[in-house]
This record gives sequence, structure tokens and C-alpha cells, in this order.
Amino acid sequence: MPTMDINVYSVFLDRLADAAAKETLPHFRTELDIADKPGKDRFDPVTIADKNAERAIRALIEAHYPDHGILGEEYGEKPGTGDLRWVIDPIDGTQAFVAGLTSWATLIALGDEDGPFMGIADQPYLQERYSGRPEGAFLGNTPIRTRACRKLENAILSTTGPDWFTDQELIKFERVRKQARFTRYGYDCYAYCLLASGHLDLVIEAGLESYDIQALIPIIRGAGGVISTWDGGDPSDGGRIVAAATPALHEAAMALLT
Amino acid sequence: MPTMDINVYSVFLDRLADAAAKETLPHFRTELDIADKPGKDRFDPVTIADKNAERAIRALIEAHYPDHGILGEEYGEKPGTGDLRWVIDPIDGTQAFVAGLTSWATLIALGDEDGPFMGIADQPYLQERYSGRPEGAFLGNTPIRTRACRKLENAILSTTGPDWFTDQELIKFERVRKQARFTRYGYDCYAYCLLASGHLDLVIEAGLESYDIQALIPIIRGAGGVISTWDGGDPSDGGRIVAAATPALHEAAMALLT
Repeated sequence: MPTMDINVYSVFLDRLADAAAKETLPHFRTELDIADKPGKDRFDPVTIADKNAERAIRALIEAHYPDHGILGEEYGEKPGTGDLRWVIDPIDGTQAFVAGLTSWATLIALGDEDGPFMGIADQPYLQERYSGRPEGAFLGNTPIRTRACRKLENAILSTTGPDWFTDQELIKFERVRKQARFTRYGYDCYAYCLLASGHLDLVIEAGLESYDIQALIPIIRGAGGVISTWDGGDPSDGGRIVAAATPALHEAAMALLT
Repeated sequence: MPTMDINVYSVFLDRLADAAAKETLPHFRTELDIADKPGKDRFDPVTIADKNAERAIRALIEAHYPDHGILGEEYGEKPGTGDLRWVIDPIDGTQAFVAGLTSWATLIALGDEDGPFMGIADQPYLQERYSGRPEGAFLGNTPIRTRACRKLENAILSTTGPDWFTDQELIKFERVRKQARFTRYGYDCYAYCLLASGHLDLVIEAGLESYDIQALIPIIRGAGGVISTWDGGDPSDGGRIVAAATPALHEAAMALLT
């Protein structure tokens, strides 16, 4: 991907995030109609804010890049005619959104057959916009880096909640938790942003969808972190994910997760 | 307590919170020296921000109300000569603070022999200041109310993390969790603020100290909520705490916790 194209897409990603924020923020901390999406064990809410934000994002992409593919949480897959595909979660952390908590974000990735190479995680209530591209990761316009944490005993660990693991997964997670410095629960996609910006050191989750993680991959990698599935595979399809501040910490966590 | 005194103390509480914010915010999301406090099972960090914030609060109280008692997390108890006592947690949620998360707050309560009658929970990074006094609860200057949630099946439940419960406590918590609409982890004192402002419905915790909870009691009650120990007792000394949006929801939760 030529640098000029990256710059153009970077500006466009900001525009997509702005459009989504216009649909999400007015509904945050207001009374919402909340529907439970079928087919999952846990309560999986969707609101008018999720739907309208994804529609706004898709409309802009379709107007400017009609040949690109689109995958979105709420409106599914639209195949493209070329290599490029946008992957959208209009509100990652809808549970947090409806509970008035600030750990939700709008996630948008742009990728090709090798996976996502650019991504944005926008938290408009906090006015924090995290982005990743091949040459780095940024909070707003400021470059961000992961922390130089190499040992589990020094690591601040995060996961959304123990209920998101199967029993077998929880046993493995607990092995890591017992060695980590301390563990914080509940931060959804925002935990990955804080990992990229050098506050947390390790995020371990399971049961993720591709749209939950794709935008975060270029952010983690651009900031110097490592992200993969628990067995070291490509994280682009979601599933069980481990993200770490350094390669050494990633290795140490993987050794307990596999 | 005459209304005029309440108004005077209310202005003074704002001043205390302003003084604390000057000591906490400059250290938030910076590299910090973190000490682990002895005597607890879990990692219990303390930073220069905790210490300086409590010192700033204590200095103002001692200058203006030298006869009042003070209890603070970092510097302990100073007995007063009258009925009134300030209870301070300069940074509730220090783990969150050092991890760059926004669920910490400065908690300050003012009480007498009947317990706290005024309290403030200040989150300066989010610029959200929650306060409670006999006639109501406020976010900034705006009155707040709990939501009219009466049934567990409709309730959004929150707790800081499962590791904070003993095994026996966790069994009881799980009874409630399985009936609640959904559960969010990780929000420390901020969960009580969101309960008071009508976003969450139920907070259940254990192992709290008096300085963790006293400031939140007037906020919850001023907003129309109910707060007690798990067996319905006075929550002022901390321990196992249940806070609910309505009396009916509080009863329903207590029935599963005792």
C-alpha cells in the first residue's frame, strides 16, 4: 500500500469516526430501547445507536469506495470486487454503552487479503481517538507506544469478565492471572487502547468476532505490541485473543494459555 | 444540621475536591512509582498522588475546622473534639488509576454519630463530580435519580471483580448474577455514581473499608437508592455492600445474598 493511499484512507477513517459519533453520542446516557440479539448465551444488546452508526459508516464507504467489501456487526457482509475490505463494529461494548460506562468505542478496520493494516478505535465521549497504520499508532495526533513490560509478575492484566470464558478457558486465564501483578476487569476494546498507549500490559479474551478485534490489530502492532490467538495464530478472525506490550510478555502468557 | 451549614459544607467539599484534583490529575497516565501496601492478599498500590491528595485535603480541613475528626485511607484517624468527622479516600480505585482507567475518584464524606450525611465523588479526568446531601444527589449542579428498576431480571449489575469475593461470597453473588439482566465488572466507586445517575441498577461488593463507601452513601440515598450491608445493616463501616436503584430491587438482591 503506497504511503499516499494510507494518508488518504487515514483522513477517510477520521471522517467515518466523526459520522459514527454523531449517531452514538446523542444516545449515550439517555433512555434507550434495548433489544437482545438472538443466538448467544449472554445478553447481547443492540440499540438504535449501533444501527444508525453502522448505516452512516456504510453509506460513506459505499459512496466513496463502491468496489470495497464491507463487513459490519449489525448489517453483515457486502462482498467487494477488489482486495480491500472494511470491518466495522459501530459500538464495541454495547453492554457498557447502555450501562453509561465509557469503555465502548467505534471500531473500523481497513484490510486486504493479509488482514487489517489500518484501524481506528474512537471513544467520542472521552474524546479519545486511537488509530494504527503501518508506521505507527496514535492517540489523536500523538504517537503512542506500549510499555517495556517483559515479565508476568510486573504486568497489569485486563479482561472484560470471567463470564466470557468457557470453564476450560477460565482455567488457563487463571494461570496467567495468578502470576500477573494485578488484574482489571470490564474494559472491552478500550483495554487494547490502553495497552497500546502504555498503561496496561496484557489483554486476554475469548469468544471475539472478527469485527471485535480487526481495528485493534494495527493499533497494537503500530504501538510495538504483539497480538495473536492463544496458540500464536492470526488474530484477524477473533476467537481467543492475547495482546501483550512486548514479545517476551506475549511468549510468557502464551506458555500458560496453550 | 441546619440548611445553612449544609450549604457551607457543600461549598467546602467542592474546594476539597478541587485541591485533590490538583494532586491527582497531573500524575494520571504518567509513569508512577507504585508501592504495594502491606497486609492485604491482593495488590494494593499507593502512589504519590494518593498521598499528596490526602495531605491537601487534610490541610484544608485542619485549617478551617480544627475541631473536626478526620479518617483518611493513607494517614489514618485524627480524633475530633465534636460530633463531626470527615472520611477520605484520596483515590478510590488506585489500581484503575495506575492502569490509566477512569473509574477512580476522590471520595470525601462528612458525617456525625449517625453516619455520613454529605458526600462527594469527584472524577476530575471525566470532569464528573457527584455529590449527595440530605435533600438530594447531583452530578455537577444537575439533580440525579436512580432508575425505576424493581426486578432482578431487568437489572444491570456491577461489581469490581470476582477476585474481591471469598468463595462463599462468590456463591451468593453468582445467585444474583444469574438472575440479573447482565453484569459489568471493574468500575470501583464509579459504579455507585452510575447507579445514582440512573444507568446501572445494582452494585454488590465485599471487603470494603469505611473510607471506600462513606462518601457514596449520601449520593445513593440522595438519588433515591438504597444501600446497606448484605444483611440489611448500616453500610457506614464497609464490609459487604449492596446498593440498589429501588427498595424492591434491594430486597430481591438481599434475599439471595443472605
